[in-house]
Amino acid sequence: MSGPPSLKRELRLPIARRSPVSESVRVSGIAALDRATRPRSVAIVGGSADPSRIAGRPVKFLRRGRFTGEAYLVNPNTPVVEGFTSVASVEELPHPPEVAFVATGARAAVGAVKELSAIGTPVAIVLASGYAETGAEGVALQQALLDAAGPMRIVGPNTLGVINLSDGVYLSASDALETPGLESGRIGVASQSGGIMASLLSRAAGAGVGFSKLFATGNEADIEVSDCVEYFAEDEETSVVALYLETLRDPDRFLAAALHAARRGKRLVCYKVGRSVAGALAATSHTGALAGSDRVFDAFFERAGILRVTRFSELLEVPAALATNKTMPGRRIGILTTTGGAGTLVADALGALGFELPQPSAAVVERLTAVLPDIELDLAHNPIDLTLAGIREEVMVPVIETLIANDDFDAIVVVVGASGVAQPRLVADPLIACAARPGAKPIFAYVSPHIPEVLARLNREGVPAFEAPEACAAALDALVEARATLPATREIAPDPLVATRGRLLREDEAKGLLASYGIASPRRAVAETPEAASVVAGALDAPLVVKVLAEGIAHKSDVGGVALGVSSGDVRSVAATIVARVREAVPSVVLTGILVEEMCSGTEMILGMVRDPALGQTILLGSGGIAAELLGDTALALPPLSHDEARALIGRLRLAPLLEGARGLPPKDVDALAAVIVAFSRFVIDQGGTLIEAEINPLVVLEPGAGVFAVDALVRVEASN
Amino acid sequence: MSGPPSLKRELRLPIARRSPVSESVRVSGIAALDRATRPRSVAIVGGSADPSRIAGRPVKFLRRGRFTGEAYLVNPNTPVVEGFTSVASVEELPHPPEVAFVATGARAAVGAVKELSAIGTPVAIVLASGYAETGAEGVALQQALLDAAGPMRIVGPNTLGVINLSDGVYLSASDALETPGLESGRIGVASQSGGIMASLLSRAAGAGVGFSKLFATGNEADIEVSDCVEYFAEDEETSVVALYLETLRDPDRFLAAALHAARRGKRLVCYKVGRSVAGALAATSHTGALAGSDRVFDAFFERAGILRVTRFSELLEVPAALATNKTMPGRRIGILTTTGGAGTLVADALGALGFELPQPSAAVVERLTAVLPDIELDLAHNPIDLTLAGIREEVMVPVIETLIANDDFDAIVVVVGASGVAQPRLVADPLIACAARPGAKPIFAYVSPHIPEVLARLNREGVPAFEAPEACAAALDALVEARATLPATREIAPDPLVATRGRLLREDEAKGLLASYGIASPRRAVAETPEAASVVAGALDAPLVVKVLAEGIAHKSDVGGVALGVSSGDVRSVAATIVARVREAVPSVVLTGILVEEMCSGTEMILGMVRDPALGQTILLGSGGIAAELLGDTALALPPLSHDEARALIGRLRLAPLLEGARGLPPKDVDALAAVIVAFSRFVIDQGGTLIEAEINPLVVLEPGAGVFAVDALVRVEASN
Repeated sequence: MSGPPSLKRELRLPIARRSPVSESVRVSGIAALDRATRPRSVAIVGGSADPSRIAGRPVKFLRRGRFTGEAYLVNPNTPVVEGFTSVASVEELPHPPEVAFVATGARAAVGAVKELSAIGTPVAIVLASGYAETGAEGVALQQALLDAAGPMRIVGPNTLGVINLSDGVYLSASDALETPGLESGRIGVASQSGGIMASLLSRAAGAGVGFSKLFATGNEADIEVSDCVEYFAEDEETSVVALYLETLRDPDRFLAAALHAARRGKRLVCYKVGRSVAGALAATSHTGALAGSDRVFDAFFERAGILRVTRFSELLEVPAALATNKTMPGRRIGILTTTGGAGTLVADALGALGFELPQPSAAVVERLTAVLPDIELDLAHNPIDLTLAGIREEVMVPVIETLIANDDFDAIVVVVGASGVAQPRLVADPLIACAARPGAKPIFAYVSPHIPEVLARLNREGVPAFEAPEACAAALDALVEARATLPATREIAPDPLVATRGRLLREDEAKGLLASYGIASPRRAVAETPEAASVVAGALDAPLVVKVLAEGIAHKSDVGGVALGVSSGDVRSVAATIVARVREAVPSVVLTGILVEEMCSGTEMILGMVRDPALGQTILLGSGGIAAELLGDTALALPPLSHDEARALIGRLRLAPLLEGARGLPPKDVDALAAVIVAFSRFVIDQGGTLIEAEINPLVVLEPGAGVFAVDALVRVEASN
Repeated sequence: MSGPPSLKRELRLPIARRSPVSESVRVSGIAALDRATRPRSVAIVGGSADPSRIAGRPVKFLRRGRFTGEAYLVNPNTPVVEGFTSVASVEELPHPPEVAFVATGARAAVGAVKELSAIGTPVAIVLASGYAETGAEGVALQQALLDAAGPMRIVGPNTLGVINLSDGVYLSASDALETPGLESGRIGVASQSGGIMASLLSRAAGAGVGFSKLFATGNEADIEVSDCVEYFAEDEETSVVALYLETLRDPDRFLAAALHAARRGKRLVCYKVGRSVAGALAATSHTGALAGSDRVFDAFFERAGILRVTRFSELLEVPAALATNKTMPGRRIGILTTTGGAGTLVADALGALGFELPQPSAAVVERLTAVLPDIELDLAHNPIDLTLAGIREEVMVPVIETLIANDDFDAIVVVVGASGVAQPRLVADPLIACAARPGAKPIFAYVSPHIPEVLARLNREGVPAFEAPEACAAALDALVEARATLPATREIAPDPLVATRGRLLREDEAKGLLASYGIASPRRAVAETPEAASVVAGALDAPLVVKVLAEGIAHKSDVGGVALGVSSGDVRSVAATIVARVREAVPSVVLTGILVEEMCSGTEMILGMVRDPALGQTILLGSGGIAAELLGDTALALPPLSHDEARALIGRLRLAPLLEGARGLPPKDVDALAAVIVAFSRFVIDQGGTLIEAEINPLVVLEPGAGVFAVDALVRVEASN
């Protein structure tokens, strides 16, 4: 994606030169959000003069900010509010406002939106709830709202609105704007929940973290989170984007927007709910159960270059750290403390995330000793503990300077101890002074006691500060450069939502289809009767496998339809036996043949495609066999996959060492396995939306040079094909 | 353990009737901590009149509290401080103080302690650092301090002291006492770090959580964390104990103290650092590497009935929830919210910990609808979302009442939304009112925006309140009754620290030893030459295994000393071949025999004993085979184990379903496996400290009735035995 240049130009125009939008023009999502954040004129429709009423909040908050344009209050009672021109109806507005905030109830909003659109308003924010989130009737009302909007863009409905902290323009009904200490900063927020936007805004104010713009996207009847990401990609005040997601309405568009934003140097961090949903997807294969809907999202965010955090607090803490715009080439952390226990705590949390805590080099120890000639301290250990004796500015500054000037560490964490309660500037001042030096390494603060004012001040002054040692570690992790690598752009297969039914290919058909992509299966033949099976078996090498083929039966062994290790002479009797077993297990069964195949044993894997309802096709590779399945040794990735990406996918399995030949065991044909994964991913892409599910289980991997064989294959396609 | 009755009596005496301690009497740890927390008289030795100096802090803080006894300042300069009687030296004290706080430097403290002991002071708190924590010289100084103390008990050295919030007596140099809002409450704290004690104290004050007493145990030269646990077991103001641990100096004593406290109804919660240490223990067996030192601590805390938290913040949040003294019979949670997103967030965090969120029953929906006749809401879902329309006291109170009166839920979580910023009492008041009803179910609050005053007020009024949804879930988890079950008392094998060397038993010796405990091995014979091996093989059933026995070689297959699937006729040539291979691999090898054994295949397990340097013997059970080892499917427990406990240990393996016969596979002899685990744990206990390591790998489990066989066994004992 190369981005929509015309829209960028539109956004980057100085406000004064924006041309009014004519009735029939639909502005882009970016332009709509630009109007909503930096309007020259605003109309609050149904706004109240009473600040205690919900409809009074947007009026109150718009006044409280730094909005200097024209403000209209549209209300038949024409209430008097300072700073607003009151009119009785939309028609009475002297010209179309650049943005309207509709503060009426759900039904009245439909009429207001129709009127606003009619006069050429480019975008309206609709506060009311009672639309699609409430059921069938609400869905119809939301459609009526959209119809009424025509070319006008809608934020919401069911949204708490839009908050521009860069310029002090608040078009929001969120009481979180009452929190003292709101700050502007370089983090943009898009949230699919207004309450969560409010939570982030309020908590950021408490922590001294600043935002650029915040969007609550509500029901996303029109403008949705992808529009916000596209907007932030262009917004010069935003360098990090924090996303709260409950669903993705258009994953392809979201992926493109995210990759575009990343290429423009923005870092994206998301919290996505749904980790807890017992997430087996509707699928016949094991792949669906092994993948789980939420792990598919992990693979998706990885591909999109988005850092997913798993604790809500980190949706604020990690962006705050990234907003310093610092990175780390490695994972070596130096901890400086004046209180032993807290240093240990931070070390423990860092160690749990795989950071290294190297001892300071002899050069650093020497310099530290020179700085502290009068104090007897053991400075050769990390954490470096200055004890209470070291809490003096004339000690702290040269010590921190020494640590950041040397190459021993990639980042420094400084502990603020309980002395900070009585003397809050004692550690904070040296920290702030050192962090401000140009080119300084990342300096983080762990604040051990409860001194919120110190925490907030450090954050405000560009020193990411944490009350939780685990959060400090997670935020540092986000700064490690390797984490910031952007994945190559990827085409995504077209993804029409498909039914979970369809037609199950017969095993030999499925294997034939896979063979056309170069995925081999053992030599085999199909016969119609046990007698015929015995004849075709003559051309194959024993031991053999005999399977009953039957319509709609995916797991033949569950109904007794598989026999292993059969000698050529026994094929006839064995086939007769298993046919009888299947008939007994499923009396209505329609048999379609008997498959005789050469037996193939080796390291078993599972390779499958699962179609996530939201995200589309995902490739799952797993260690095979029942044991590995119970232990859940699987890895996910989005297709298509290159050979290198397939090797990386293999490497993410915990059993990968076995394939590489660990513990003196013979290595396996990993190259051939990677080639099969690449071929399978190509097969999946080619089949596109017609492929419902596909799974090779087991996929048997032999010794190097001997290849990889699909021993069983399950392919389900759209019935119409 | 039945507890020391004489000490309990001593503690429970009213202070006024305490008899002075004579010079030669050493009081118990409980009595010493009782003196330190509720002294009738205090001497601060080396205390300063200048509150900005560290030695001035204990003087300042003792004055600030509610101490009403006699206070002496011992300082040759006899400074004047209101409320204190100043004397120039310890000898000038009119009588021995019940506790002394020694605020001098490390060397001077030795002299002060000697003088204090000489006049019959029962306990001294020693602030100075520079002792055992600093190296060999410091270790000697600490020993000198102990020698000087004689029968006098020492808290510290290197301690921030003792804080009694129940009675307002502060004998501490911690600046955390400057935090506004310190509260008394029912949580006792023992911390091996003064800085962490300060952190907890300060954070609790911010969160509205109260403590009874706080002990920083410092270097634990004398009084250590076990004494604190014993003290809290008897302290009537304490119902929950929060422990910060870096090490355990006497695990047996700690275990006994913890179990005793639990039997007296106290709940213990600990945070133990060390999770991050790449913790392979020094051991020849795989068991050591699989166990990892920190996982042994998990097993230890489980046995001790202690809830281990893994995030530092939970060391405050979980005890605060437990201090409400409420429990839950099940895991069904009802969430009540007025803001959708935050309700989803809490639901997500609860789901991740396995809580259920059942939909409200028809009866509850009916009653809720009756309470809210004028609002159109869908109340049949959980989270129950009242929307902004429901934020009124006349709605909230009957809604919460309905939820707690019905049996749909075991606990209720109420979300405080952003409206709380502007109107902090709106949701908080109904919550507090309902939680105070006698017998009310647990009611927790999730505070979505940053409103610290609401959070603190809720906690103070007995409604556990959380800013992190994950912490809310973790705290609820601690309230589930099953978690509170106390393990039966257990003897622990004597645990002298043993060297990691010792004598490796020959495999057949080891198997013989295990056989005497009823642990069977396949039939076998040992021969001295390949020819003799061929002869003894005649009495065994093929296929056979041939192994070269050699001194000090634990892993025979690594040196080519094992051959599998050997026919009787091949034993001689195979034996000759593998003997040659071993001689080539280890030219200096001392061969001790050739083992011929019947081959036995089935489900492979690993059963071992690992000796943790701190905690002693631990049993490890794991799924066997290289694959399971790479996937780390293991479980730990402390010996001895009953049959039920052995079954529970098996059930904790992720591969347990395979043993029980999952997926149509034949079940295995789980009863015999449990019996072998019980026998192995008895063997481990019996061998006691002479046993360095023991491992059966593989332990092969056959079908029900066919038993379990130790196919290989490694036993290392003290060389002197």
